[in-house]
Amino acid sequence: MSLADTAPKPHDRLRDYLGADMEAVNSLIRTRMASEHAPRIPEVTAHLVEAGGKRIRPLMTLAAARLCGYADKDHQKLAATVEFIHTATLLHDDVVDESDRRRGRPTANLLWDNKSSVLVGDYLFSRAFQLMVECGSFRVLDILSNASATIAEGEVLQLTAAQDLRTDEGIYRQVIRGKTAALFEAATEVGGVIAAAPEVQVAALARYGDALGMSFQIVDDLLDYGGAAGDMGKNTGDDFRERKLTLPVIKAVAKADDAERRFWIRTIEKGRQEEGDLDHALTLLRRHGTLEETREEALCYRDAARAALADLPDHPLRDMLADLADFVVERVN
Amino acid sequence: MSLADTAPKPHDRLRDYLGADMEAVNSLIRTRMASEHAPRIPEVTAHLVEAGGKRIRPLMTLAAARLCGYADKDHQKLAATVEFIHTATLLHDDVVDESDRRRGRPTANLLWDNKSSVLVGDYLFSRAFQLMVECGSFRVLDILSNASATIAEGEVLQLTAAQDLRTDEGIYRQVIRGKTAALFEAATEVGGVIAAAPEVQVAALARYGDALGMSFQIVDDLLDYGGAAGDMGKNTGDDFRERKLTLPVIKAVAKADDAERRFWIRTIEKGRQEEGDLDHALTLLRRHGTLEETREEALCYRDAARAALADLPDHPLRDMLADLADFVVERVN
Repeated sequence: MSLADTAPKPHDRLRDYLGADMEAVNSLIRTRMASEHAPRIPEVTAHLVEAGGKRIRPLMTLAAARLCGYADKDHQKLAATVEFIHTATLLHDDVVDESDRRRGRPTANLLWDNKSSVLVGDYLFSRAFQLMVECGSFRVLDILSNASATIAEGEVLQLTAAQDLRTDEGIYRQVIRGKTAALFEAATEVGGVIAAAPEVQVAALARYGDALGMSFQIVDDLLDYGGAAGDMGKNTGDDFRERKLTLPVIKAVAKADDAERRFWIRTIEKGRQEEGDLDHALTLLRRHGTLEETREEALCYRDAARAALADLPDHPLRDMLADLADFVVERVN
Repeated sequence: MSLADTAPKPHDRLRDYLGADMEAVNSLIRTRMASEHAPRIPEVTAHLVEAGGKRIRPLMTLAAARLCGYADKDHQKLAATVEFIHTATLLHDDVVDESDRRRGRPTANLLWDNKSSVLVGDYLFSRAFQLMVECGSFRVLDILSNASATIAEGEVLQLTAAQDLRTDEGIYRQVIRGKTAALFEAATEVGGVIAAAPEVQVAALARYGDALGMSFQIVDDLLDYGGAAGDMGKNTGDDFRERKLTLPVIKAVAKADDAERRFWIRTIEKGRQEEGDLDHALTLLRRHGTLEETREEALCYRDAARAALADLPDHPLRDMLADLADFVVERVN
């Protein structure tokens, strides 16, 4: 094990640095997800909220605000807001994807039912809405309401784009912006806004969040095909089996000859998958170099994220955010 | 046919009086439900939004604002907001209830799928959120975010209370407040707030909306057992078959002897319903006079709604709102 493997990861360093803030956020999350009248609500949310996600989004809001010199406490409410929105979308996503595992545990739709997941998701979203209203900033509300619309639109787009070989890179980028980058962007941007940071810093935070979110999702999609080297393990191949068009496949479809095109039509559009199809898909991705191209694209967003940080004040948190951008893409090296 | 039967109904008179406003609201709804990128969204929403609902909630917002002398146009945005929230909850309700018909047409979850209903509901909710932020009133945001939380909490409570004979009148009232009255209340209250009406008028509008919503839902639940006379027709008995505990049954369970209790346990809790059970349930409701008691309760809320109007200015719209309160309960006479 090299020194690099034992060094604390950037999100752990962020969590240490922002320990007191993060404790307040966790306490807010516990208080606000409670419901006096409907005990099903805290049961479902506790299952998900306490399942040990990395809380990366609220960390970004806290980091953005502190980095810009914020000394008050409203950024904690915004961090909890962002985590509630994220949790609500996870609950609805698991219904839509008919998932049975999330973070290594059975999903809420499996433990309870789809109904509970839909309604508790709605409840968390309304709680998020109450929390952000309390912060008293119209600009924050504007950012978060626009992010919510982008997220919902991206989810619907993903649903209609699935299994459709006409899905191109533009549609893909819009889907992952909605699925991941929009909330990352809003999370960092509202941190700067609540800190009343200069416009150039607020814009830089938004650019950082967006680029980090884009690279994060592209890397995730790449890892589902075993990363740039295509090393398939037990946690790979889900997107192929679920017939999702992600960047490595979209790029391979664009370069496909007639026989390859028939393969993609059969496996993705018609969903008639047979033994060995995943291996053949990987062969095609390697043949056209699309895993490597996808990795290049993630690196571009990583560079954009790091470049955005240049407009922010020199600060230990800025260095951790830079390291976080590296860490996200290191997963595929 | 008597004269009363041919006279225009109160909501039709409201719609005539507020014609120009309502046209603007309909145009806002069409514009804002559109999505450049995801054509599934307008397909699903058009199916529901244009299915010819009575648009009673947006009419109440418009009426409340105009009645308080409002001369600007932001009440139209709030009316569209309220209709979007309502439509979003209908989409999610149909998934939760596994419904196949709504307003005489197949539901969206049947025509498309549950996934589309969940995600398009989320989209409409986020659009509602954007619209209300545009109005620039924190008090409006506070009212609508609290209403959203009450709605979501009521829905979860309804889910867990279903099939549970311990459901009492207090829980029932909380469920229908969430299911119906909270949005009616918010719809009228924000109309007064946007008009900058005196506090006593804003409070009166909120009380009117709440009481109207409560009587509306109690009447709906009573009609499912054929009204106060228990005249069962083809559109009745759904709640019994779906094992929902509504007021007539809750009151009958409270008065049940041992044999009757065994009947309710078998049919509602265990769901082992047989031929003739609905008729027997009706016999029990009549025996204990619970249909008549339920009607009395709806009339109390009707009276409360009318009484609240006394604090509002003398105005043709005030008379229409009073008639609307009468009309709602006349359905069971």
